[in-house]
Amino acid sequence: MSDDPFVFGLDLGGTRLKAVVATPDGTELARRTVLTGGDDWQEQVKQAIDALRAELGEPAAIGVAAPGLPAADRRSIAHMPGRLPGLEGWNWGEALGAIHDVPVMNDAQAALLGEIWQGAAKGEENVILLTLGTGVGGAAMVDGNILRGHLSRAGHFGHITVNSRGPVDDFQTPGSLELALGNFSLGQRSGGKFSATSDLVAAMAAGDLLANEIWERMMTDLGAGVTSLINVLDPAVVVIGGGIAEAGETLFEPLRARLDEFEWRPQGAAVRLARAELGDWAGALGAARSALLSLSSS
Amino acid sequence: MSDDPFVFGLDLGGTRLKAVVATPDGTELARRTVLTGGDDWQEQVKQAIDALRAELGEPAAIGVAAPGLPAADRRSIAHMPGRLPGLEGWNWGEALGAIHDVPVMNDAQAALLGEIWQGAAKGEENVILLTLGTGVGGAAMVDGNILRGHLSRAGHFGHITVNSRGPVDDFQTPGSLELALGNFSLGQRSGGKFSATSDLVAAMAAGDLLANEIWERMMTDLGAGVTSLINVLDPAVVVIGGGIAEAGETLFEPLRARLDEFEWRPQGAAVRLARAELGDWAGALGAARSALLSLSSS
Repeated sequence: MSDDPFVFGLDLGGTRLKAVVATPDGTELARRTVLTGGDDWQEQVKQAIDALRAELGEPAAIGVAAPGLPAADRRSIAHMPGRLPGLEGWNWGEALGAIHDVPVMNDAQAALLGEIWQGAAKGEENVILLTLGTGVGGAAMVDGNILRGHLSRAGHFGHITVNSRGPVDDFQTPGSLELALGNFSLGQRSGGKFSATSDLVAAMAAGDLLANEIWERMMTDLGAGVTSLINVLDPAVVVIGGGIAEAGETLFEPLRARLDEFEWRPQGAAVRLARAELGDWAGALGAARSALLSLSSS
Repeated sequence: MSDDPFVFGLDLGGTRLKAVVATPDGTELARRTVLTGGDDWQEQVKQAIDALRAELGEPAAIGVAAPGLPAADRRSIAHMPGRLPGLEGWNWGEALGAIHDVPVMNDAQAALLGEIWQGAAKGEENVILLTLGTGVGGAAMVDGNILRGHLSRAGHFGHITVNSRGPVDDFQTPGSLELALGNFSLGQRSGGKFSATSDLVAAMAAGDLLANEIWERMMTDLGAGVTSLINVLDPAVVVIGGGIAEAGETLFEPLRARLDEFEWRPQGAAVRLARAELGDWAGALGAARSALLSLSSS
């Protein structure tokens, strides 16, 4: 048991729950990962939280990050078809028997809040996060506010067009950034030669010309997409995360070169490009941060 | 002289100043248009405001809309190369001898605020405005806040990519929405056959097949661009203004058809498309609204 106030930050994924216990100054008291696969994931989540309570005591607040679109009242996820049965409409605060309202955020929006609290964009007020993995996702903070929007879908950066004549993606976006970059479409983009972007990067390092050509095309699409987002959202910092960002300078060097070509830099001001720092824990930390913010606003 | 409180909303363009005098409930007491061409535009602006004061009395506040990027303190335009010499850094409040601080906004951001106050998106909290004219511009309100961003450039919707392999525009954006739609590039896009979009629309009505083909291509690029903005900003309403929007249903019908194809509609929710209602006065009205908001926040 701790005498200092602390909060729980929960990040629900498809197969596991990540929980972080943190104090207002950002000190982490605990991290837990609990497998929550199967249809009884809600029961597993409740048990995991009860175990944390038994160990550490009652938190001052709880915050939640989960996939899908949060409801307008931010107490549940309103829209998440296909996965995690029972998530839609599940009121986390009631289910967990929380003392205070439990804010529920989209996972990408939580990850951005985490990176701003503890990671690559500490203290910034204008930041976008782009996650490049199986698909492409993201979130934005503008003028100090995390953008939610009418249906809480702001920041779906995978679903911007980079080629209006291209085929539509799963969200109906023509020639989307996700189709151009996401790992899921690499097989198609490489004529079946590669199925993982990490293999593509390795082949390129070994001198494979096709791999190099595919990568350069990806970097042009990424550079154009980031340019669009800069001109729409005007960030000071663009944070890049997700599995594909593990390519490191192999990604950042050509991306910087594209921005040298494409970026509008009024009076010479260039956006800072940064690699995400918190990895898989960004969402849980962001959820903890949102719990802390809910305390100070109540 | 009026006994009720009222504000001045000023909208500075390249050759004229529009001024509106309005009360908190939106009643307009006067509209004025003053030519301000030439290098002594600042003197002409000051004289116009003094004349308004002599006629109506001292306003409770003044708000300004102007082209370019406002400074962080919102007292001047910080960045506006090429036109309106002397605008950069000109402190409107000091120059006009105002009692209160004079908020200075970007003209597109002011036009959006005007449409939300009095026009096509009354009372909405999630709206984007897209202006289609010589160039393409815009602004966004998300979660009740007009987006400004790090350099006040948020909402430059003309400079999003719709074709990452295309040539760059004046802002270095590859294959931008502005290149695809702006009147200035129509000559190029039509092999010199058309120089005004209104002529293109007239030719199409008369059965010109090339005109029709160019227009359909524009509508696909516009549909893709609006789709991108929906997925990034999540508006409830998309307002379309500018000279090209005067095509009316000739534009809105194919645009709606593109959105039927491209728009992500979680649980069936479609964005409302609306034509701008305030025309050339949107900026002045938005400036008046920002003056009123500055009163209630001070």
